[in-house]
Amino acid sequence: MGSAERMHMVNSFDPAAGTNLGPRASALLERRRRVLGAPYRLFYERPVEVRRGEGALLFDPDGLDYLDAYNNVPVVGHANARVRAAVAEQLGRVNTHTRYLTDEIVDYSERLVSLFPEHLEQVVYACTGSEAVDLALRIAAHVTRASGIVITTNAYHGTTRASAAVSPSLGPNNALPPHVVTVAAPDPLRDPAEDGVTAALFAQRVGDAIRQLERRGVTFSALIMDSVLSSDGLVTHPEGVLGPAVEVARRHGGLYIADEVQSGFGRLGAPWWGFSRHGVEPDLVVLGKPMGNGLPISAVVGRRDHLETFGRDVRYFNTFGGTPVSIAAATAVLDEIEERELRANAAAVGAALREGLHALADSDPRLGQVRGEGLFLAVEVVQPDGTDEHAPDATLAGRVVNGLRDKRVLVSASGRYANVVKIRPPLVFTREHADRLLTALDEVLAETRGAGSAARDTDGSAGGGAGGPVGRAGNRLHR
Amino acid sequence: MGSAERMHMVNSFDPAAGTNLGPRASALLERRRRVLGAPYRLFYERPVEVRRGEGALLFDPDGLDYLDAYNNVPVVGHANARVRAAVAEQLGRVNTHTRYLTDEIVDYSERLVSLFPEHLEQVVYACTGSEAVDLALRIAAHVTRASGIVITTNAYHGTTRASAAVSPSLGPNNALPPHVVTVAAPDPLRDPAEDGVTAALFAQRVGDAIRQLERRGVTFSALIMDSVLSSDGLVTHPEGVLGPAVEVARRHGGLYIADEVQSGFGRLGAPWWGFSRHGVEPDLVVLGKPMGNGLPISAVVGRRDHLETFGRDVRYFNTFGGTPVSIAAATAVLDEIEERELRANAAAVGAALREGLHALADSDPRLGQVRGEGLFLAVEVVQPDGTDEHAPDATLAGRVVNGLRDKRVLVSASGRYANVVKIRPPLVFTREHADRLLTALDEVLAETRGAGSAARDTDGSAGGGAGGPVGRAGNRLHR
Repeated sequence: MGSAERMHMVNSFDPAAGTNLGPRASALLERRRRVLGAPYRLFYERPVEVRRGEGALLFDPDGLDYLDAYNNVPVVGHANARVRAAVAEQLGRVNTHTRYLTDEIVDYSERLVSLFPEHLEQVVYACTGSEAVDLALRIAAHVTRASGIVITTNAYHGTTRASAAVSPSLGPNNALPPHVVTVAAPDPLRDPAEDGVTAALFAQRVGDAIRQLERRGVTFSALIMDSVLSSDGLVTHPEGVLGPAVEVARRHGGLYIADEVQSGFGRLGAPWWGFSRHGVEPDLVVLGKPMGNGLPISAVVGRRDHLETFGRDVRYFNTFGGTPVSIAAATAVLDEIEERELRANAAAVGAALREGLHALADSDPRLGQVRGEGLFLAVEVVQPDGTDEHAPDATLAGRVVNGLRDKRVLVSASGRYANVVKIRPPLVFTREHADRLLTALDEVLAETRGAGSAARDTDGSAGGGAGGPVGRAGNRLHR
Repeated sequence: MGSAERMHMVNSFDPAAGTNLGPRASALLERRRRVLGAPYRLFYERPVEVRRGEGALLFDPDGLDYLDAYNNVPVVGHANARVRAAVAEQLGRVNTHTRYLTDEIVDYSERLVSLFPEHLEQVVYACTGSEAVDLALRIAAHVTRASGIVITTNAYHGTTRASAAVSPSLGPNNALPPHVVTVAAPDPLRDPAEDGVTAALFAQRVGDAIRQLERRGVTFSALIMDSVLSSDGLVTHPEGVLGPAVEVARRHGGLYIADEVQSGFGRLGAPWWGFSRHGVEPDLVVLGKPMGNGLPISAVVGRRDHLETFGRDVRYFNTFGGTPVSIAAATAVLDEIEERELRANAAAVGAALREGLHALADSDPRLGQVRGEGLFLAVEVVQPDGTDEHAPDATLAGRVVNGLRDKRVLVSASGRYANVVKIRPPLVFTREHADRLLTALDEVLAETRGAGSAARDTDGSAGGGAGGPVGRAGNRLHR
């Protein structure tokens, strides 16, 4: 496997590295390799074996607890009791498809669309974010009678053929078709710092991309964006950064599809959806991961006229989409978010965690920028003493991720340069959990101050010295 | 909606027909229409409202029981206790993705692949049949470095963009791309009756289709077939009917993908998989619907070399594919099928039901042929007194389906001419259930003997007289 490929699957276990995992895990791994094979990759230099979970904690077979600061599916907590009870109760009654009349899907759908701007009135269910993106692209193509799509350089939107076609982050072997054009995401660390410039530059690139499609003879259909551009390294600031690009797309007759698989359901704190940060409203919204806390349910929320046109002309039926059991799980998730005030919790704990990360970054020049909102935070790991002080340091980011794993704190890395440490815990994360993460990160940073440079030296990269300038302003984002 | 379109969504409720459904259902329907909209269609002239289920029975809000002779997802019965317990237990422990090590997916995968021919050694999980078909087509394209696909005229393989592209049964607005060519399915009723001719004609058509692709400049990648061609009207006989076509595909360098979403997991009685009827072995197998008894789990089973090549070059990760909870459901399904001997039950009850259908067909010339195996049976409804005695009668098939629904027996219709009554109950179907279905069908046939002709007359079709020749041989399939 080449380094380009490896870079694109950040933080994956390398079976060829010969890491000693102990007899039990090694035996399981060998059986797994035989029957699941190459498509299945594990996280971390030393994979984590998971036996049970509770809230924001996972436990291995020895009963040791791992702080989960990464998983965005179990949004209301691992082994959530209300989700479990709701699913078990519904499984004891019935679980049919949507071609019979049932109450629950109607009740839930009304509640769900009430959380969106008024023009988004209808919903179609599927099982995965990939299916929902695939469907949203089909709806967009049908109502615009066009196929051209604009995405960001390191976008990830799914793994069906059509959603993988808009997911360049899947790596070099995932060739993009001619109706898809990429644009570099806004880069709050490397773009000029003046207010509005990042957003304006991005909008300009989207306009250029649409013109590029037109030169290829492809009519523009839609701009699809993860509302926080997580696989591009997490772009949450400045607020409104994606707005001007959406306006450009609209002026060219295209739709704006907001992929809320990452940013939806209160991940960012107060707002239910990430798009509301941008001062623009989507034509289609894609929901996924956290929606059923692990039960496979996803959705497309859209305009009545669009869904009427599509539904009249094209048959779409998803056997498992919106079944009573998945709706029961999704209902329990909304109940939990609302009754336990998890959006407020995400805002408060997220703010405390971000302050802690800022404090660490202020005293360590290898942390180039802290980004994020609510409980979706990211830290750029850079080589501060090279000629370019923002040069990404994927090697050190990998050491931080694996160092944290060894202290039983689970995060991962992402971004175009694989150097962005991604922190994205269940929304039941507490201040105590945040403190545990910050303490562990502080220790890992200290431990890598010597070793980090050695590790980079073996790669031929510049070595990182200990210490560095304190209290730099560059890592605090202006709003 | 034109009649061509209506014909393709067989047995759908028409909100414009003004059927009086009573105040409760009407109010629910209106709310449903507002929030779910046009993509969502209901079954039957008078939709069924479902409140709970048990085994092969569904119950409406008044507690009336409906015999479910249609649903192939709840294969081990509605509200199955073992599936419920397994899911609830696992939800109380943990439900992560596959990038951590867990036992259950390895245990289940070993058990699953042991049910296949030796060369099919590895498995990849997804959530829906559509996703699994989409993935199988991607794997086939990658390992053959080709894109040409051959399918049957009325095939159905899914609703992602790539799986809809091989699903002409979705109707005229679902245009097929140039890399897809259709061939007419074998027609055991209308093809010449000599042994082997049906299979040979079909193989010839597949060869012609591959040459047609080549003339378009498209290299042939795969032949994908539902092993019982259910949306083409159910073709189970003669045994081996698809075999020669597979040989032709192989000779042209293509793969054979067996879509077992309909025919897998003992649906046909003794064999676990439908492809084993054809004397050929697939390169890739797609599993879906019954796999988790309603929990969304699907899979692609394939050769090690193919999955190694694909997995090495292409990143594929499905967040909800093969989670511990879906694996728990799938494990419980296998346990139920094996311990309750549901394959033997499907064979025995299916044989009794087929005999009963043959008896009805022997005395009613409007039943043109009885087909099927195990608990997947089909009856061709025809106009016996026209110039062509096999002329399909979709109108009468619709009356039979809705007549049975009014007697609280649930079936549907399918096939290229929408005239094939499809009987496909949960595998827990008993002889008593079969008797109830046969009695109800006998009554509906009697009731439509007068009314049926009137109904067809309004369509301008030939009227069907009562009675007719008894004991015809044409409706019994030679093996």
